[in-house]
Amino acid sequence: MHARTITTVGRPSTRISTGEGVKRSFPLSRVYGLLEPGPVVLVTTARKGRANIMTMSWHTMIDFEPPIVGCVISDRSMTFDLLKATKECVINIPTVELAAAVVGCGNSSGRSVDKFRAFRLTPATALRVGPPLIADCYANLECRVVDTRMTARYNLFILEVLKAWIDPSRKRPKTIHHLGRGAFMVAGRTILLPSKMR
Amino acid sequence: MHARTITTVGRPSTRISTGEGVKRSFPLSRVYGLLEPGPVVLVTTARKGRANIMTMSWHTMIDFEPPIVGCVISDRSMTFDLLKATKECVINIPTVELAAAVVGCGNSSGRSVDKFRAFRLTPATALRVGPPLIADCYANLECRVVDTRMTARYNLFILEVLKAWIDPSRKRPKTIHHLGRGAFMVAGRTILLPSKMR
Repeated sequence: MHARTITTVGRPSTRISTGEGVKRSFPLSRVYGLLEPGPVVLVTTARKGRANIMTMSWHTMIDFEPPIVGCVISDRSMTFDLLKATKECVINIPTVELAAAVVGCGNSSGRSVDKFRAFRLTPATALRVGPPLIADCYANLECRVVDTRMTARYNLFILEVLKAWIDPSRKRPKTIHHLGRGAFMVAGRTILLPSKMR
Repeated sequence: MHARTITTVGRPSTRISTGEGVKRSFPLSRVYGLLEPGPVVLVTTARKGRANIMTMSWHTMIDFEPPIVGCVISDRSMTFDLLKATKECVINIPTVELAAAVVGCGNSSGRSVDKFRAFRLTPATALRVGPPLIADCYANLECRVVDTRMTARYNLFILEVLKAWIDPSRKRPKTIHHLGRGAFMVAGRTILLPSKMR
């Protein structure tokens, strides 16, 4: 896996050029709005210069700021081993244009496949963690594991989001949502309601 | 809160008539497909004949069968107190037709409002737990708390789904998904992909 070196634009922590367009920094206080609707995500991990990708739907916000995320990862996966060892990952949020790659990553194991190469995804160097961003995804959350006390019992990792990136040109990202057995719901219209919820 | 008595149709654990149409039993092995896409849900709790409703988006599947669900509930809410005391709740899954009630339940507290009455929702007696089902929701998951070890630290409850109900007449339920600050995504089209994921 050869991550493209990012080109910082202006202050290094506000904009990056990934080779798949420029991404801007996204406020940590608003990360919940990316994960709460339940999109399928791609989790990247890496060790010794080798990166892996896992398709994941079992995640929840746990706190707003800093954003704390809980996620459940099969203990038979390579991602489980890498995350336990390195304590770092990136949560990448794909849209429906990447559906074939999302399913491909879910159907295969990093033990036998270089998923970046197999599914033509573009790695980009992260700012705060070792594993690469997937530049093709519209948003990327750089995370570190902050609690593994529930890992043995539930395969549950508690992550803190250290840095978030978003593609500012994507106004209505069509995320995909796993329904099981090959079916996925594609994000539909947005409605506005008089909610006092953050 | 006066829950309507359910009328069982045939074997008591396979179909119920709630006064808002007949619901059929839904296999526990398929519950993950209801929660994985990340819908906003309504959680019912009850104590001493008084029921409450809370709007919730912070939940994740943790295991397939029996279905284990993790959910994060604010410790300032009445639902937190009732769930901690009674160890029982129902996760009710609403569709966009109930959006006004969903937001209303999120904007108010059960300490001052009878939410069933205020938002014209129909309680129905559950089969395995004390809190009522919301008959108006297309699916209902009767749950018991099985682990509170993460509750003090993260407001995280681990639930086991004991019984699941679904409205068999609703083929394409338009669930709603919280984006924050009054915005909700409505479930769009369904696509089929060659996924090996369960």
